Amino acid sequence: MKNRKLKIAFDVMGGDFAPHNELKAALSVSGKFSDEIELILVGKKDLITKSLNDLKVSTEKFSILEANDVITMNDDPTDAIKNKKDSSIFKGLEYHKNGNADAFVSAGNTGAMLAVSTVLLGRVKGVARPTIGSFFPSSQNTPVLILDVGANIEPKPRYLYEFAVMGSIYYKEIIGKNNPTIGLLNIGEEEIKGTEVIKETYSLLKQSSLNFIGNIEGRDIFEAKSDIVICDGFVGNVVLKFAESFLGLLKSTVKGYADKSLTNKLKVGMMLPVLKDVLKNLDYQNYGGVPLLGVNGVSIIGHGKSSPLALENMILTARDMINSEINLKIENALIN
Amino acid sequence: MKNRKLKIAFDVMGGDFAPHNELKAALSVSGKFSDEIELILVGKKDLITKSLNDLKVSTEKFSILEANDVITMNDDPTDAIKNKKDSSIFKGLEYHKNGNADAFVSAGNTGAMLAVSTVLLGRVKGVARPTIGSFFPSSQNTPVLILDVGANIEPKPRYLYEFAVMGSIYYKEIIGKNNPTIGLLNIGEEEIKGTEVIKETYSLLKQSSLNFIGNIEGRDIFEAKSDIVICDGFVGNVVLKFAESFLGLLKSTVKGYADKSLTNKLKVGMMLPVLKDVLKNLDYQNYGGVPLLGVNGVSIIGHGKSSPLALENMILTARDMINSEINLKIENALIN
Repeated sequence: MKNRKLKIAFDVMGGDFAPHNELKAALSVSGKFSDEIELILVGKKDLITKSLNDLKVSTEKFSILEANDVITMNDDPTDAIKNKKDSSIFKGLEYHKNGNADAFVSAGNTGAMLAVSTVLLGRVKGVARPTIGSFFPSSQNTPVLILDVGANIEPKPRYLYEFAVMGSIYYKEIIGKNNPTIGLLNIGEEEIKGTEVIKETYSLLKQSSLNFIGNIEGRDIFEAKSDIVICDGFVGNVVLKFAESFLGLLKSTVKGYADKSLTNKLKVGMMLPVLKDVLKNLDYQNYGGVPLLGVNGVSIIGHGKSSPLALENMILTARDMINSEINLKIENALIN
Repeated sequence: MKNRKLKIAFDVMGGDFAPHNELKAALSVSGKFSDEIELILVGKKDLITKSLNDLKVSTEKFSILEANDVITMNDDPTDAIKNKKDSSIFKGLEYHKNGNADAFVSAGNTGAMLAVSTVLLGRVKGVARPTIGSFFPSSQNTPVLILDVGANIEPKPRYLYEFAVMGSIYYKEIIGKNNPTIGLLNIGEEEIKGTEVIKETYSLLKQSSLNFIGNIEGRDIFEAKSDIVICDGFVGNVVLKFAESFLGLLKSTVKGYADKSLTNKLKVGMMLPVLKDVLKNLDYQNYGGVPLLGVNGVSIIGHGKSSPLALENMILTARDMINSEINLKIENALIN
């Protein structure tokens, strides 16, 4: 497998800054990894050609898979499957499913990526429900993988157990840490805490061969008390969106302080460059997209606001997922 | 009612820094509000007497209700009801229940406060489940009241509706804003999103006379998109503890930055006093404890780490709850 180039289909219409950020990422990847990766750009041909011309890049550098529709961030995922078969997400995943590409990467509509990936690619053997995870920064300088963050809002205990298995394999292969720790998100540390679903999940995880450390609480996430946090998609989605709003609160608090007096304004003026530099370490973009785990293929989803660097990291995550044969490992772990 | 002094029983054994912070708060309140409030200190008499002597305060300044046991933060609430009847929480609430005090205030074990308050005081007519709320800071400079934050982890739609009614009355009377807005915490804005419980709650809130603005998401909390956020106690508890950990992450990120080089250390040294000053605006201690709503009495719970100022604000919240007859208003709103 390592002897041939990997073909990765890349949605250049997906993110909020498409196709600009996408093409910058594609150029960077093709410059650095041309012996490993062949990118197929998926999207409106005219737009891609024009944008490449604007960047003074030869259009022959990439193959293009034409897709003349776009699933927007506001489109309903179910409608998208039925009515947007000419969209970049549908076309790219179909291309991947038919074996023409080894993976598909998009910063587009997360719900549509989940739905279309599940319908077209199907599930890995042994997996009841695919899941979407997300990486959080932590005070320990290691990323924390939370799953599920929205794909399954009322999962059964068995599904949550499967998320832990998939997350564990993904964390090991992509972050490179053997036997990562698993925590079950709960309202207290004691085994008797939580809903019936959580208690049954606790019992499944305890009996498993996973590195389960027990219940963890909301305050333990940023402390990286466990490498992986298991929760239902309702809680995970609320926590993810809540976390993304912290920096906004900090920003407005700083602004409110500065607006109080001229002295404050001067103090903030001096502090701001340092604070911005500090906060770079909390940037989720370093982690290269969110994994969609359990679908029978490699489908990488990114944040709509992904920078060129984030998009580049997403493509490299796809490469690592293919090379490490994560799906085969998930299948082996779940059907034994 | 306004003509007589309010009697407020105050647990001086409750918080993490008891009795020190409690006695400082008691002294401040008795200095400023002696014409309005009479405090009854609840706890170990010897310890209180000794501590007052250390502070060079006459022990005659306060009446003392002797309680020789303490419910610790690690005690199980149910055990506490059975086996800790000589604890400050039990004794103080019993004193309140028997009409000897108009309210009870404690920064002790939250679960025990909820359990003992519910058992001893009973519920306000029309209330199925008492709830605990918490105030969050926001970028709009107005506090956001989230409930439930742990008392009810799998509430029925009717209970969630009642939380909204109680929260609305509390917010109006304590924060002083008429007709506060209510948001239902969900994973998307659309009415069709969420679990069955959430969808039914949406429908109850929509039909009510409350100022319901619809679903809100995790990112909307700190933006104060609604004054009040309704959620189950599982989600609310996770979000509350997660929020409290954000400053820890920021601190360790700043430290990590400073440790990288001497230049960074100097930059951080200059920034730190300003940053600390800025972050004071996010201090939850300004809001005077968390309301326990729906019990037939006035029981105010504070964070274990409450400062003297936070404890003082808790006592004043008790005063405001009594004077504004919140429980009567809740009863009227729910039994009509």
